[in-house]
Amino acid sequence: MTAPNSNAKKTFQAPKGMRDFYPADMAVRRYIEGVWRQVSINHGFEEIEGPMFESLDLYTHKSGPGIVSELFQVFSGKDEAEIEQIRQGKDAPFALRPEFTPTLARMVAARAAQLPKPIKWFTIPNHFRAERPQRGRLREFMQWNVDFIGVDDDRVFEAIADVHTMGVLVGALERFGLTPVDVRLKFGHRLAIRERLGLHGRTPDQIEDDLVFLDTRQKISSDSFRTQATERGWSEELIRLFDPDHQSTVPLHLDPEKIDGLSDSEKEFMRQKQNARGDLQYEVRSHGIAEWCEFDSMIIRGLAYYTGLVFEAHEASGGERAIAGGGRYDKLIESFGGPSMTACGFGMGDVVLGLLLHEKGLLPEDVYMRELRPHAFVISSGDDAAEQELRKLVAELRRAGYHVRHTYRSTRNVGKLLGEAGKNHARTAIILDEKLNEGLINIKDLNTGEQSEYPRGGVEAALCEILAQQDQQEDRAAGS
Amino acid sequence: MTAPNSNAKKTFQAPKGMRDFYPADMAVRRYIEGVWRQVSINHGFEEIEGPMFESLDLYTHKSGPGIVSELFQVFSGKDEAEIEQIRQGKDAPFALRPEFTPTLARMVAARAAQLPKPIKWFTIPNHFRAERPQRGRLREFMQWNVDFIGVDDDRVFEAIADVHTMGVLVGALERFGLTPVDVRLKFGHRLAIRERLGLHGRTPDQIEDDLVFLDTRQKISSDSFRTQATERGWSEELIRLFDPDHQSTVPLHLDPEKIDGLSDSEKEFMRQKQNARGDLQYEVRSHGIAEWCEFDSMIIRGLAYYTGLVFEAHEASGGERAIAGGGRYDKLIESFGGPSMTACGFGMGDVVLGLLLHEKGLLPEDVYMRELRPHAFVISSGDDAAEQELRKLVAELRRAGYHVRHTYRSTRNVGKLLGEAGKNHARTAIILDEKLNEGLINIKDLNTGEQSEYPRGGVEAALCEILAQQDQQEDRAAGS
Repeated sequence: MTAPNSNAKKTFQAPKGMRDFYPADMAVRRYIEGVWRQVSINHGFEEIEGPMFESLDLYTHKSGPGIVSELFQVFSGKDEAEIEQIRQGKDAPFALRPEFTPTLARMVAARAAQLPKPIKWFTIPNHFRAERPQRGRLREFMQWNVDFIGVDDDRVFEAIADVHTMGVLVGALERFGLTPVDVRLKFGHRLAIRERLGLHGRTPDQIEDDLVFLDTRQKISSDSFRTQATERGWSEELIRLFDPDHQSTVPLHLDPEKIDGLSDSEKEFMRQKQNARGDLQYEVRSHGIAEWCEFDSMIIRGLAYYTGLVFEAHEASGGERAIAGGGRYDKLIESFGGPSMTACGFGMGDVVLGLLLHEKGLLPEDVYMRELRPHAFVISSGDDAAEQELRKLVAELRRAGYHVRHTYRSTRNVGKLLGEAGKNHARTAIILDEKLNEGLINIKDLNTGEQSEYPRGGVEAALCEILAQQDQQEDRAAGS
Repeated sequence: MTAPNSNAKKTFQAPKGMRDFYPADMAVRRYIEGVWRQVSINHGFEEIEGPMFESLDLYTHKSGPGIVSELFQVFSGKDEAEIEQIRQGKDAPFALRPEFTPTLARMVAARAAQLPKPIKWFTIPNHFRAERPQRGRLREFMQWNVDFIGVDDDRVFEAIADVHTMGVLVGALERFGLTPVDVRLKFGHRLAIRERLGLHGRTPDQIEDDLVFLDTRQKISSDSFRTQATERGWSEELIRLFDPDHQSTVPLHLDPEKIDGLSDSEKEFMRQKQNARGDLQYEVRSHGIAEWCEFDSMIIRGLAYYTGLVFEAHEASGGERAIAGGGRYDKLIESFGGPSMTACGFGMGDVVLGLLLHEKGLLPEDVYMRELRPHAFVISSGDDAAEQELRKLVAELRRAGYHVRHTYRSTRNVGKLLGEAGKNHARTAIILDEKLNEGLINIKDLNTGEQSEYPRGGVEAALCEILAQQDQQEDRAAGS
């Protein structure tokens, strides 16, 4: 026998490095996104979104032509001119977004005059990178982006914005159940790096060149780093300070007069900040995030892009994977055609975070399952009246906002159906049996096993009360 | 004077037909997605997601090569082989998803044996169409997809699955505040169309050909339709029945013996369905959605794809725009390499729905603003103790799960800051002034204007109680 349509049969797989989210995967994803979203809102950030793809030159404008080989390029299959352009060897007109910052800068620049300041925005977009997939690195991933953009006057102090941005990051880590033992928020500062280099005898011109060299540090081996630094004439102590194998923390407080390579206006800016109440140390302590933080001269990130504080959240043990990273980028909005605006932001991806939460046992089913549990599983003992009442009751309760399920099997054995209710993680079972003739319906609390009869008209109120009791019990259990 | 960085300055716009979602736009989008999601869950559907782009041949497999010109094609800028392939005139390896169904079919086929049945899934993906943007039709849009896939035995009746799928659609319309006066759920049936054609003298061979013709009906003018139908030899009455300007409703109940062009197995299937308790009319009535529904022979949709019931939700007045559409597609999972499975589903986009809700005044700010209102706006009168206490209290309340804001302005005038609290739509203001020396903090209910003092340690409990009272009052006001 030949199967019908056998010619049309074909199996397909998801593209390499892309994920299928079945319901259990999606529940975890929604849990992570839900924490990101709620913590952002609690910290006074507002949600935005942008297009999934942008003009390709939006990305080369920020990152230079080297970014093109990291991008998935996009073109319309309808547009002959676009197709022809690619056939002639040019890039496609669009690219899937590899990061959100260029979109953010474009959106801020477009409405900079009208938007109330400061602009506190977050977004949870998909991003795409055309690289070889590996553990912790996929071609499509979610990333939480948080940005604090000001300020057309000096009423917002830089340190407040920096700490409020780091504060929402710490808020999410706490909500996920992570502690300062699990994750360290390490920060560095462009000025501090200049200071270190200056204090070790580097001249202003050498410092500019050293910064470019340091920016490549994470891509080269420790040996190669030491060899190249020696060739540059670095002292042994300076090499040791920036050695990838060496960790160093220094006090936050910087005296601008001791920092070589600062312009007069940068010194003036530093002084203002130091004189204000809102210096970094004060804000970090007042906001209660000090135990998460350490100053680490190893934290450099892209120096062409960041202009002040930079920070990364790292898992404290094992692979030291970076969970999040960000910093201050005061020149960006202007470079996208907007006015001069200060800005600080970070991104946190879902992939490394998800692995970490899983490894730490912080993704137990009940953490994210609770909001997905059916409020009621409705059971009919099978006669015509009960069958019709089941349909009506299910529709009525759903209309009232309850999550209600019932069997699709042919059995009407109440015991078997109670078993199915349990498999569905239902919180109650509502049983329609021969008592329906007397106008009575049974509700069983599937947490406690208690069961009571209610008049048909009182079912919704009774369900509401049982669920409220369960919520109280679970909150007490969680709090104890 | 020349602006610094003037060479680097450049302005960018979102690609044509793509949207920027600023906070107010995003609040509406999240409101719509929230209703879709909660109604789906309440009806027992589970959420899934898939990759943003798939192999291009996943789409041509379902829709034929004609789909290519509707797609945005995607390739890796890193992969020389992919680039070369396009330069030589071939299609790109990937395409941004224009619809979710092929991904759904692929995901079901991959795990068909393990997944519990029936499979009730929903998803709210972005979709992309390479067409000229116009009102109600964009290049990127959100679409709610709901699918009910069974059944390895006959315990689920087709009519139950169909009505449960339509039921979740109606559930969302109701939750948005739409009524059967605003929107009609029109359904047709492949068998009913065959019946109509057969009753008007068309032979089985002619019927197959007529179906292909009917499938093009919505793309041609009424005049052109009548001319072509006459050329085919259709009777005047038959032309009138399918005329785009004519509306017709017929009873649901079909007698399989009166339908020409049915195979014996189709007749047998029809008979089984009619004998079961769960026929379509019974289910529609029992689920309380009858007042939304009408049978309309004009509802055809893609006949190559749909195998049974088809339905569309249309606005009842004005442009008659389609808000949602779907139906039964029992052959699809098999054609993607899975087993033979029945299936019914629909899609509802955000663009036409959003326009309709806006026009009907069903997007007033308070509908979606409520969950985004700050629970508290904290105000300090400015001395050092109050400033530090503000930071601690803000951090503490956010950690406890509250949405808390405060000023970033330099003013410490309590009256001006109460004004800012109001502009932020805050529900309460927490005021730290000279009473802090006595350990007292003021909380003002910004709904009622009432104000009371609390000891520092009792602030969180007091806030919790004030918010609970406000919720009760708002629920009462909404219910009255």
